[in-house]
Amino acid sequence: MSSSLLVVGSVALDSVETPQESRDDVLGGSASFFSAVATLLGPVRLVAVVGEDFPEQHVTFLRERGVDLSGLQRAAGKTFRWRGRYLQDMVGRETLETRLNVFEQFEPRLTQDFRGSDFVFLANIHPALQLGVLDQVEQPTLVACDTMNLWIETQRPTLEQVLRRVDILLINDEEAVLLTKERNLLRAAAKVRELGPSKVIIKRGDAGALLFDDVGTFWAPAFPIDPIIDPTGAGDSFAGGLVSFLAHGKDLSPAGLRQAMIYGAAVASFCVEDFSLDRFRTLSRDELAARCRAFGDLTRFDEIKL
Amino acid sequence: MSSSLLVVGSVALDSVETPQESRDDVLGGSASFFSAVATLLGPVRLVAVVGEDFPEQHVTFLRERGVDLSGLQRAAGKTFRWRGRYLQDMVGRETLETRLNVFEQFEPRLTQDFRGSDFVFLANIHPALQLGVLDQVEQPTLVACDTMNLWIETQRPTLEQVLRRVDILLINDEEAVLLTKERNLLRAAAKVRELGPSKVIIKRGDAGALLFDDVGTFWAPAFPIDPIIDPTGAGDSFAGGLVSFLAHGKDLSPAGLRQAMIYGAAVASFCVEDFSLDRFRTLSRDELAARCRAFGDLTRFDEIKL
Repeated sequence: MSSSLLVVGSVALDSVETPQESRDDVLGGSASFFSAVATLLGPVRLVAVVGEDFPEQHVTFLRERGVDLSGLQRAAGKTFRWRGRYLQDMVGRETLETRLNVFEQFEPRLTQDFRGSDFVFLANIHPALQLGVLDQVEQPTLVACDTMNLWIETQRPTLEQVLRRVDILLINDEEAVLLTKERNLLRAAAKVRELGPSKVIIKRGDAGALLFDDVGTFWAPAFPIDPIIDPTGAGDSFAGGLVSFLAHGKDLSPAGLRQAMIYGAAVASFCVEDFSLDRFRTLSRDELAARCRAFGDLTRFDEIKL
Repeated sequence: MSSSLLVVGSVALDSVETPQESRDDVLGGSASFFSAVATLLGPVRLVAVVGEDFPEQHVTFLRERGVDLSGLQRAAGKTFRWRGRYLQDMVGRETLETRLNVFEQFEPRLTQDFRGSDFVFLANIHPALQLGVLDQVEQPTLVACDTMNLWIETQRPTLEQVLRRVDILLINDEEAVLLTKERNLLRAAAKVRELGPSKVIIKRGDAGALLFDDVGTFWAPAFPIDPIIDPTGAGDSFAGGLVSFLAHGKDLSPAGLRQAMIYGAAVASFCVEDFSLDRFRTLSRDELAARCRAFGDLTRFDEIKL
């Protein structure tokens, strides 16, 4: 039997500008990307909040993919909105506007069913809310967590409480430096692991993601894509791929974790091929399997004898 | 019998500042790094120029390693000097001073012996000089070449003449974008290959290096090192490792090239562990073999079945 998987995070309406094209009010948010990706391998439970203006078509899309939306709260007011602009290199970006709207009053409430979830992903929300979720789940097999510079700078004590209860922390390189005051990633990762998570994944955008665990370091490159249409959600897609692979493959060994890293990088590489979640609307199991194999071609080399 | 390997480039005295430490007038220059690394696998011929002030100890060091210095010219005046400062992240750097000195009048002259070299590396020098070297060598098996933004911006026609006669171009990501006006690396690499080189290697600093050839794309990550003492010469060490591996292994197949990429990344990872060429003074064959194996651990994953 497959394990149960829970994500708590944001469902948002994104407006994205790239040097080539723009889109307004498309489906976004960490929990949307995570859950849409997770359904590629099995069911997923979502806890988030949307406003009265949230288009029914997005609800239908997620439900039809197999996302359990019984934890999707609807609140009076508007849905969380984010507007951003990507630079020419399609890596750097500036946030033009963030309107929390209904997200400001969000309080994750888990049904009895959801409390029994085996795998839990705490997307990037206020650490106090992450803590609230951890207090509700009963005996998770694995807890993974994301965070951001704002919480590292303003909510460190609460964030540290969260980290003590987390198995895998996913952060980007700048956040790792900010959290640990160490610029060297090996040293930063070691310091993060002292804070609680036995496994740390440092996301480096188009350079890929590095896993640090008891076995050592593993590097999942970012698959080279041309053209990159919209990088939004790549990190949450990576997390969705990684955690769902662990939940549904249930191989939590170092070897399984390394496969999960590549699987996460594979789905993230599809994410950037279109705006919003659109690439996942058409992505087939065969395309995904082929991309995972292509990661082998990208990194494999014969033994070097000196 | 091993193939003959020639490098034409700079021998310099570097002054390096890092947030932790500084060194003045240490041995530097592309040809120094390249040749010191190449001798780990076999002999190498060096063509460069130094001034009257060049310390004899550096000559002795290179000679004792097995570098054929019969092409090292000594000119009236001072040796080429470079002074740079690394930023906190130990990746970004600013050049504080460049004094070409005797390098300004450098004209590579190859002895009859050197003209018969099988493998040629044209380090980053004026494209007219690179062309002069190509006119002197008779029937090289493989020509690899480096360049920089200055030549791309000011000597494009000459550089394009060079590229038509080059098998492997090694450049960094910014140079690739500058050369091709393409920000996407896949597209940039494809455009470079249209200019002549059948193989393009794009160096991305601490993200590693990507190879683009007929077979596809291969990513050699940068091995995570703690602490990084001095990144100067990492790119030239990479080139020295790569080309000497090809010259002395002589497996020019796609599989051999991928091993050469990893071998280059391995020596580059040692380069940054100390100032100047100092790490190569003590580096053992066993350490090098172990680092190559460690690249396997860093990148290897079991087949993913979906």
